[in-house]
Amino acid sequence: MSPGFEYLASLVGLIRQGTINIVDLTHPLNEHTPVISLPPEIGRSSPGFTKTTISNFDDHGPGWAWNFLQMGEHCGTHFDAPNHWITGRHHATGSTETMAIDNFIAPACVIDVSEKVLNDDSYLLSVNDIEQYEAQHGQIGDGALVLMRTDWYKRMGTPAFLNDNCSPGPTADAMRFLAEQRDVRGFGVEQVGTDAGAAGGFVPPFPAHHYMHAKNGFGLASLAHLDQLPAKGSVVIAAPLKITGGSGSPVRVLALVPN
Amino acid sequence: MSPGFEYLASLVGLIRQGTINIVDLTHPLNEHTPVISLPPEIGRSSPGFTKTTISNFDDHGPGWAWNFLQMGEHCGTHFDAPNHWITGRHHATGSTETMAIDNFIAPACVIDVSEKVLNDDSYLLSVNDIEQYEAQHGQIGDGALVLMRTDWYKRMGTPAFLNDNCSPGPTADAMRFLAEQRDVRGFGVEQVGTDAGAAGGFVPPFPAHHYMHAKNGFGLASLAHLDQLPAKGSVVIAAPLKITGGSGSPVRVLALVPN
Repeated sequence: MSPGFEYLASLVGLIRQGTINIVDLTHPLNEHTPVISLPPEIGRSSPGFTKTTISNFDDHGPGWAWNFLQMGEHCGTHFDAPNHWITGRHHATGSTETMAIDNFIAPACVIDVSEKVLNDDSYLLSVNDIEQYEAQHGQIGDGALVLMRTDWYKRMGTPAFLNDNCSPGPTADAMRFLAEQRDVRGFGVEQVGTDAGAAGGFVPPFPAHHYMHAKNGFGLASLAHLDQLPAKGSVVIAAPLKITGGSGSPVRVLALVPN
Repeated sequence: MSPGFEYLASLVGLIRQGTINIVDLTHPLNEHTPVISLPPEIGRSSPGFTKTTISNFDDHGPGWAWNFLQMGEHCGTHFDAPNHWITGRHHATGSTETMAIDNFIAPACVIDVSEKVLNDDSYLLSVNDIEQYEAQHGQIGDGALVLMRTDWYKRMGTPAFLNDNCSPGPTADAMRFLAEQRDVRGFGVEQVGTDAGAAGGFVPPFPAHHYMHAKNGFGLASLAHLDQLPAKGSVVIAAPLKITGGSGSPVRVLALVPN
């Protein structure tokens, strides 16, 4: 039996016996799912999520129920593809259809700034935070997915989730560091978008989008339960819908977490 | 280091070195994606997929592109949840939101009837086919995802994909066997739906839906590239969008395949 067969043969067993747990990092997707709202002078906003009945065990389909869905690509727990941003639009493999699929299974480095955010809604993840993380857990490896833990996900369902754009995110320096000094493949957050509420005024504006998509990396937003992940050692599975030309999609995000 | 940490630490390395390959079992999702069409006397049909621009590096959003999506839940490569069917509607954990997430990472048993389908578009997977598979590869294990390989996916983009409802699928006996004599968790096919084109006339009608959803199992339809999977030994990741009350969703399906 080849090493690959042996390895995979044990994966399901390790999950069933609880040596590896699966954690759902996804919020439910429904009419209450908050979406980012842009001031009209900045641009057009995205519609939210709606679901309407096609049939529900009735005259329109006696034996089955199904629904019609409408949503923005960047709605709820979602994936940002490189072609979402002007710095990434040139990538031939920058859409939800064309991205290399090994992006979708990535080792996670979870940087916990939840205590700082508790005291400051607008807290910005800094290079110093990254250096402190690396001093404790080792250098962030090539191809890692960096996750910013804020415990912000606990605000879901309250006005404090969108929070009038006073929301945390990374500094421009932090994103430049992750993209250029480290070979980070993705950057994920618990907030409605990967950038801070004030990031439109940063240099460059919206640095999480700017730097990650410039290098054909992806973003994950509105993640839940990052407090259930270790700082290092989990593997995150986040595979967007294969939309032709898609700039992102709602996504079901699962983490494989060692017990 | 715990066994779970050790195990996951090697997963990404095995993927990068090609000991484990990731295979995309998903068709692109776009305006050409075929959807099942019901005769009006049977019920209302599902709309297909559409994508409209919110902004595209223009006045509506100079620095970014994003889209608005509309689709039926059962559109393209998609997931059928138990509450899609009258036999599964009673399950408290039968929606895309409430299903146990360990359903979404499953060991795959691939039963290859592609040569039979080559000679007969309406070929039906039989108990005999399953017994032949088990004689060669061992008994189908508890919690397996059974995939019916037909090479039908190669017809995508042609009228022969929907094929006027002359399409292959399982017999009622085969589905009863998989659901009741084996503890199969999911059943997946390359065709537009999990049941054969003629399955409305079977006893019971639509047996793949009937039996799998009765036992809180799931379906996968419009899969691609099943010919790239071994008969046994791959692990399929198929996590639907977390739609509240959802009966299914388009899904990105990945397989971990030993090399």
